[in-house]
Amino acid sequence: MGNMDYNFLFDPSILADLDYSSWKSSFRPGVSPHTPGHGLKVRPLCATDYDKGFLGVLAQLTKVGTVTREQFMARFNAMKDDKSYYVCVIEDLNKREVIGAATLVIEQKFIHSCGMRARVEDVVVNDTYRGKQLGKILTVVLIMLSKHLGCYKISLECSDQKLPFYQQVGFKQDGTNYMVQRWET
Amino acid sequence: MGNMDYNFLFDPSILADLDYSSWKSSFRPGVSPHTPGHGLKVRPLCATDYDKGFLGVLAQLTKVGTVTREQFMARFNAMKDDKSYYVCVIEDLNKREVIGAATLVIEQKFIHSCGMRARVEDVVVNDTYRGKQLGKILTVVLIMLSKHLGCYKISLECSDQKLPFYQQVGFKQDGTNYMVQRWET
Repeated sequence: MGNMDYNFLFDPSILADLDYSSWKSSFRPGVSPHTPGHGLKVRPLCATDYDKGFLGVLAQLTKVGTVTREQFMARFNAMKDDKSYYVCVIEDLNKREVIGAATLVIEQKFIHSCGMRARVEDVVVNDTYRGKQLGKILTVVLIMLSKHLGCYKISLECSDQKLPFYQQVGFKQDGTNYMVQRWET
Repeated sequence: MGNMDYNFLFDPSILADLDYSSWKSSFRPGVSPHTPGHGLKVRPLCATDYDKGFLGVLAQLTKVGTVTREQFMARFNAMKDDKSYYVCVIEDLNKREVIGAATLVIEQKFIHSCGMRARVEDVVVNDTYRGKQLGKILTVVLIMLSKHLGCYKISLECSDQKLPFYQQVGFKQDGTNYMVQRWET
């Protein structure tokens, strides 16, 4: 089946056309976002990923809760219409299973000449696939995607433990603090 | 002129209906988001705010750059269509001038049962109007708006200097770090 047969969240040619040559030395020989490993492929989220374990991978990151197929499709379609959500996944093609995911969200601004900023959200790799640079691959995809889209900055929030991981792909702490309040029980 | 005559970014009745009774003790007597001060009014951003100094207020916060009326309207309309942007302003009705602004941005998620999170962005008060609890009023408006919209959390990024300000309205640091990379020259 060609790409035409799939309901992608965003145009897969955007990912296919990204140039990662400047990142070559930061990956193991032969590895890049275009060649993430044997039988693995980086692509936009698809509607069919509901049946390929997408929510199960997210559940390794945080609370997902009950999400029916109808709820998933409603959110998928809302994100697709919005055009600000770039959910990227890694599929193990042999298992037909989503084994990693990461989201780039674009925020429109009036500041910075009506600019756009990007955020890295919900990066996760199935724990049986750790140690293969897949988290790094997903993060580099989002960085290059945000540059391609013309954002003036990209940011993220992470635990102390993840600081070195994000530092190695160019993120810095700049003295800005993250603060939150939650209402969910 | 009634509300019908204005092109609001979002329905002003949403703000008008918010209940701030639980915040009463945190404002000076008589002050609340519904009564922010003599001649002042909290409302959604309007298309006409391009001529009321909205961008000038933002310029007290960060780089705005050149924004033509056409660029402003294109971004205003894109945000209005998107329905995820709640830019609130305070107008000095006597001067017909925007003297404060703050934005709530909603992000749709698959996690948390296809939940939504909210972010506080670009909070600023004209420096000649400081010391009137207007920044606090804008922040409380965004907090109550995010609860009204059903978000499971609200977050923000701020400097060390602003930590006490946001702590007093319920924000906490939770050990999460903020990281960024910028491309703008």
